[in-house]
Amino acid sequence: MDARDEKTNGVGASPPIPFDRELLDALMERAGIDVLVVSSKHNVQYLIGDAYRFFFFAHFDAIGLSRYLPLLVYVRGKPEDAVYVGNPMENYERELGKFWMPEFVKAWGSQGAMASVVERLRKLRRENAVIGVERAFLPADAEELLRKELPQARIVDATVALERLRAKKTPQELEWLRIASERVVESMLATVASHGPGTTKLEMVEALRREEVSRGLSFEYCLITAGTSLNRAPSDQVWREGDPMSIDSGGNYKGYIGDLCRMAILGEPDAELQDLLAEIDAIQMAARKPIHAGARGGDIFAAAGEVLRQSPNGNLLDFVAHGMGLISHEAPRLTGSGPVPYPGDDADQPLEAGMVLSIETTLPHPRRGYIKIEDTVAVTETGWEAFGDGGRGWNIGGTGSGG
Amino acid sequence: MDARDEKTNGVGASPPIPFDRELLDALMERAGIDVLVVSSKHNVQYLIGDAYRFFFFAHFDAIGLSRYLPLLVYVRGKPEDAVYVGNPMENYERELGKFWMPEFVKAWGSQGAMASVVERLRKLRRENAVIGVERAFLPADAEELLRKELPQARIVDATVALERLRAKKTPQELEWLRIASERVVESMLATVASHGPGTTKLEMVEALRREEVSRGLSFEYCLITAGTSLNRAPSDQVWREGDPMSIDSGGNYKGYIGDLCRMAILGEPDAELQDLLAEIDAIQMAARKPIHAGARGGDIFAAAGEVLRQSPNGNLLDFVAHGMGLISHEAPRLTGSGPVPYPGDDADQPLEAGMVLSIETTLPHPRRGYIKIEDTVAVTETGWEAFGDGGRGWNIGGTGSGG
Repeated sequence: MDARDEKTNGVGASPPIPFDRELLDALMERAGIDVLVVSSKHNVQYLIGDAYRFFFFAHFDAIGLSRYLPLLVYVRGKPEDAVYVGNPMENYERELGKFWMPEFVKAWGSQGAMASVVERLRKLRRENAVIGVERAFLPADAEELLRKELPQARIVDATVALERLRAKKTPQELEWLRIASERVVESMLATVASHGPGTTKLEMVEALRREEVSRGLSFEYCLITAGTSLNRAPSDQVWREGDPMSIDSGGNYKGYIGDLCRMAILGEPDAELQDLLAEIDAIQMAARKPIHAGARGGDIFAAAGEVLRQSPNGNLLDFVAHGMGLISHEAPRLTGSGPVPYPGDDADQPLEAGMVLSIETTLPHPRRGYIKIEDTVAVTETGWEAFGDGGRGWNIGGTGSGG
Repeated sequence: MDARDEKTNGVGASPPIPFDRELLDALMERAGIDVLVVSSKHNVQYLIGDAYRFFFFAHFDAIGLSRYLPLLVYVRGKPEDAVYVGNPMENYERELGKFWMPEFVKAWGSQGAMASVVERLRKLRRENAVIGVERAFLPADAEELLRKELPQARIVDATVALERLRAKKTPQELEWLRIASERVVESMLATVASHGPGTTKLEMVEALRREEVSRGLSFEYCLITAGTSLNRAPSDQVWREGDPMSIDSGGNYKGYIGDLCRMAILGEPDAELQDLLAEIDAIQMAARKPIHAGARGGDIFAAAGEVLRQSPNGNLLDFVAHGMGLISHEAPRLTGSGPVPYPGDDADQPLEAGMVLSIETTLPHPRRGYIKIEDTVAVTETGWEAFGDGGRGWNIGGTGSGG
């Protein structure tokens, strides 16, 4: 493509503001933020709405000596002042009426994009504002430009406020998450059914990727084990008769991630393997029991923990639950001991209808291999609903059917 | 997946250093850089070698409240001091012997990763070093931590040095670029052949995506026009009898991008359309003529310009040529007027064998639509070699064969 491509022009109709404006304004006020300058692909998508992600840079960022950097400016209480700074080619999308923001500005590169934001904030006389940015998703050169050009502004991190905004999913988002989850599981079952002894882990992952893509998903990753190895990277390791296999894959539909883990085996699982998976299943199902709108998030851990502690493998078992949506670990935050330190914890907060949880129980068994189930469970007013809940037992490889 | 997953350990064998060490040391010396801290996925891949990209975060970065941030530390002249700071799950890859760096350190999040780098630089007594980073690919919070923790260090941008390092491709890289280019074109021809009147642009792009993936590529994007519209975004616009269609798609193989544009039509192209595409073809072929190792890069523009100026559509035609590889616009930089301002220009430098060029001629015709050819041409000692050079004429839609 010719990256200088900016020859079209035109104005599309404006769609409605897609997110909960009052909630966003309240979250900004609570965080003391006057103006948001949002830069991560997931939050830009969320604030533009209708699963918008500029197609040209959906899968990479680098171009020339810099990068794609979308910047969405939202002024608290004043959506009429919003501006979207995008790539010149995004004018094609503007022509199609994708943007609700009254103004779209074309810019190239991280510094070019931020220079346009600075100009806009000056025009709005917001030089002294508290500006909320996503510091882990804002390049150093762009933030430096913002600080130098607007020395009176105070720059704070808005990541927590934005995550909170996304915690409760709309019916449309729930539908997309259901589709993603169901299709990931269908893809796994089809891959397992059509592959037998002698297949490498790399071949399984490539087949799964194609199955997910053929169902309209974007493949994200697959963690995979075979036999007694606990190494979850795709490799030349061969799947042999009698080997258990764990398949943990993420694929997204319109940006919303389906992330589930299912088990497969070549041949029939013996009694011990059946017992081990039944144990995991019991913990997973116990975890769902307390779920409904208004229940305490931490009750999930209490319920799962009770079953886990009775297990003979309790010392090996690992139980985790966390919110998911546009990213695979997001609010509600139910594990105080998550991978990235969380300020605070939602364990004592009530679950809300529309929150979506990933629930996972893992048994890295030294003698029988890596055994795991991961499920996706949406909170409803009266209970829960599991997305993509098929294939939770032992799925037999090479049967030729499935999916 | 359980993001806290870091239960395996082990040491793999070390592969050889995959890049031209002497060239990198020389480029660092020229730029006055003592230590590189590389953070972009493309440069981390290049420096680790063998098309390494950590599979779990190959397609996204966000997790929890932060992100995946791989950081590779290379000390000029001292590969024995190199360290790779990766995600804890990358230990699976380490076990498989993927890393030549003597040390692998596990970290979560952008600040966690940079904290590990700081610790390492202190251990190496490099607190006063000139540190080269990629500021457009280094999050603001990570750079701030580096500056605060090592106030004696000087931080400079290493993007140009790293781009220069990648300019001349190895035989292995050339093979990957050839595969990517060929498969992108095969995918286009298969998609065109199997779709006829009534297909929307969105349906064409989804079909192309699946064709690319089924050939082992990762789909990146597709810019597409139909009829007389110059809007290149996928949309519900329908491809009708007689409509020309431009299909400009990127797909990568092992990270190396195939980026080509081909033309299709429903029915037979009339004489005017045949002439217009022939004009573009003539410019494209003229551009190749001067190419060989040692030729001046700017001669490509001179040769193309001569034909372009004789064209009756010269005022509408746009000619571009630029290097490509792991990213779609990289060295050699032949257009002074590229999308992102380039410091300097390679137009007066000699082309080198192993450089790969994307050559594109575009005619956004107000009456006949968007007509374009984009080719991939590798520089050889004695001339050039085009990758994926099929389908450069009018490809007829809906014939049922092709690909």
